[in-house]
Amino acid sequence: MAQVTLTVCTTCRKTVDGTRVAEEPRPGLRLYEALRAADLPEGVRVIGNECLSACDNGCSLVLSGGPERWTYIYSHLDPDTHVDEILKGAAAYAATDDGIVPWRERPVIFRKQSLARIPPQKD
Amino acid sequence: MAQVTLTVCTTCRKTVDGTRVAEEPRPGLRLYEALRAADLPEGVRVIGNECLSACDNGCSLVLSGGPERWTYIYSHLDPDTHVDEILKGAAAYAATDDGIVPWRERPVIFRKQSLARIPPQKD
Repeated sequence: MAQVTLTVCTTCRKTVDGTRVAEEPRPGLRLYEALRAADLPEGVRVIGNECLSACDNGCSLVLSGGPERWTYIYSHLDPDTHVDEILKGAAAYAATDDGIVPWRERPVIFRKQSLARIPPQKD
Repeated sequence: MAQVTLTVCTTCRKTVDGTRVAEEPRPGLRLYEALRAADLPEGVRVIGNECLSACDNGCSLVLSGGPERWTYIYSHLDPDTHVDEILKGAAAYAATDDGIVPWRERPVIFRKQSLARIPPQKD
């Protein structure tokens, strides 16, 4: 089992100025496929999900790693330009016990495009 | 141990037209205190958290219930008018095994103010 998981919304549209842009295949699916095709860092897996209910802020994904780690939701991701940064951020996250990567070591998209974070669900 | 948890952001400001409004005590803290003071449904507990990184969409909270349930993040909550609906929604969520409450049985704020949802983290 991988230690941490990127759960990618495969139905996300891109949102520009608050409006969802029509585009097929959907950018969320393209982001998922690009991540699946990438050389994944050790301990990182990628799964798809048909809707993360973050429809106003696509593309979106969840970065999670069990009940001891914080969980993060990132938004406004671009399948064409953000794949490398997402994987770097996931690798840094996988290297922590609690999911908290020092601020300066986070990719810029993880610093600026957090939609929400959830504390460890230990109990 | 309670079955499900409302994790309330205690540092959330209210956001109007994309701007965070200055107000003390912060609406997030008032929401937390109002929920703590309420008659909680069976199986529901309330905890506070200093920041859920949902700062553009306050007030916010997380509704979670272990690795078998979907987790939800709700946004733009009002400490003065939404407490009853939040508790009704949390009770309905607690009554499910997987966290999925039929659409029509969800409070309107849970239907319309979802910021994101996260699939069960079973493995």
